[in-house]
Amino acid sequence: MSEHPTAGLDDVVHQRHRLGILTVTAEADRVEFGYLKSTLELTAGNLSRHIAVLEEAGLVAVEKGYEGRRPRTWVGITAEGRGALAREMAALRALLERHER
Amino acid sequence: MSEHPTAGLDDVVHQRHRLGILTVTAEADRVEFGYLKSTLELTAGNLSRHIAVLEEAGLVAVEKGYEGRRPRTWVGITAEGRGALAREMAALRALLERHER
Repeated sequence: MSEHPTAGLDDVVHQRHRLGILTVTAEADRVEFGYLKSTLELTAGNLSRHIAVLEEAGLVAVEKGYEGRRPRTWVGITAEGRGALAREMAALRALLERHER
Repeated sequence: MSEHPTAGLDDVVHQRHRLGILTVTAEADRVEFGYLKSTLELTAGNLSRHIAVLEEAGLVAVEKGYEGRRPRTWVGITAEGRGALAREMAALRALLERHER
């Protein structure tokens, strides 16, 4: 009996805010912290915590810099992050197909 | 700007083991505890904890009885559970479509 699609999901990726961060960063090479915060409707603290989990797992890279005189933080998905997201999406697709049979 | 698909996800439903429990119970009116345990590859303790969260939220109903002399526990999805699962699946479908654009 094949494994149930949810058995293969990785909590680091699957958690809904982290899944949001990965999908948004996958749409552009890197995304500014403020944009992520408003798009995902998260507080700065909550977003920072989830970014730290993803960074710790090597799935995103954080870059600090300036735009003019304003300090800015950018978050970019890594190759490992794109791989983990692809596996998550494949499992979600399998789950949807099983559910819609 | 429309809400990001992950912003609408409900952690009670989205957590991967609970999502597994809901999708398996949605496939049959009720499912025996042992079947859920093996299909989702969970320990009895872990499965019981997640069933309790879903029961507390009114998404599943738990029934205890006997098969012959053997005590059995069955888990059935409620109408509310089917509704919550439908909303989760719609959000996951939107996420996949956005990701595959």
